[in-house]
Amino acid sequence: MTGMAPGAAIDFWFDFASPYGYFMSETIDALAAQHGRRVRWRPVLLFAVLRTLELPAPLENAVKRDYMQRDFERSARFLGVAYRLPDGFPATTQHAARAFYLLERDAPETAVPFAHRAMRGYFRESAALGDLLQVARWVAEAAPQMGDAESIAGLIAADTPKALLADAVQEAVRARVFGSPLVVIDGEPFFGVDRLPQIEARLAGRLAPSTL
Amino acid sequence: MTGMAPGAAIDFWFDFASPYGYFMSETIDALAAQHGRRVRWRPVLLFAVLRTLELPAPLENAVKRDYMQRDFERSARFLGVAYRLPDGFPATTQHAARAFYLLERDAPETAVPFAHRAMRGYFRESAALGDLLQVARWVAEAAPQMGDAESIAGLIAADTPKALLADAVQEAVRARVFGSPLVVIDGEPFFGVDRLPQIEARLAGRLAPSTL
Repeated sequence: MTGMAPGAAIDFWFDFASPYGYFMSETIDALAAQHGRRVRWRPVLLFAVLRTLELPAPLENAVKRDYMQRDFERSARFLGVAYRLPDGFPATTQHAARAFYLLERDAPETAVPFAHRAMRGYFRESAALGDLLQVARWVAEAAPQMGDAESIAGLIAADTPKALLADAVQEAVRARVFGSPLVVIDGEPFFGVDRLPQIEARLAGRLAPSTL
Repeated sequence: MTGMAPGAAIDFWFDFASPYGYFMSETIDALAAQHGRRVRWRPVLLFAVLRTLELPAPLENAVKRDYMQRDFERSARFLGVAYRLPDGFPATTQHAARAFYLLERDAPETAVPFAHRAMRGYFRESAALGDLLQVARWVAEAAPQMGDAESIAGLIAADTPKALLADAVQEAVRARVFGSPLVVIDGEPFFGVDRLPQIEARLAGRLAPSTL
């Protein structure tokens, strides 16, 4: 027993440009709901977290990069998720992540729908995830009450969303988020979309909490 | 179609001191046999392969090391494999790998049984995997025709097993073995014991070959 309520939220850390994070985003909410849990989505700038943790970027080495590009496509097929390596991969993700935290504060029910739009647009149609105005358009679609895309772009680029994202990055460093996706259940980290079978077993009570 | 025979051998690359490699070693032969395949076991010195590929050692960073030690134990429970983090982990593995290639040449049917003895001794009972005489004892148990442990230790430490292992390391570099375990099916690499579900689907014809 960890002393935490059995229904405590699950943390889902990811970077908007992470294929494995996208694959996880397509399944984690439904899986958690089956076990009476909700999910707290936490997008971060993975490169900033890794730099602080003194870890190299995941695509830095050509041998691993070649393997991963192959594995992205194969894992998408295996998991049944629509996917195509985006043009200009990987995109910068600060606008998308700032927009998420802006919505979380001002229109919280729209933050996850926005995140789905952004990742599906990027990983299915090579939409310009790194472009502020494209991100603002996704916000306008998910949260029409926020205004039109041009005015939303101004909101995203303001100081407050920047500060909210900086806070999330600091929290990720404290939580030792060394990759995307990283799912935390009652304090126990699970790294990678390939940990889905263990996450499912853990939530179903078939895999005991790790005591380390 | 790759042009290779459907029953071509599967390559199983690993390092004797890799927990994930050990977990794979407990299941890959039976899984392959179910699909009419045999497995070519290829132990290497992972640190030597990684150095040539300009990749850091997997346990170099404390944040990832802490996570992996936790994940080793959890994955063993999930997979139903007996496991305990060995004292003095990770051990050096050149004696075990040289002994494997010595047996592969001189008593081939005993090489895999020897490898099981060595990994089970290390990962279940913290036996001294890095010690030449301990390795020679495992060889003597698996292949009594090779002589007693003292004389086998002399055979392992001779030039030929060293050259055979050096050849395997060079082959691993060409095959871009960037971690342990790495399984290659008809030219397609699968990295990590967490790829077992994809390996199974691939062998069963439920997952098409990757075309990248």
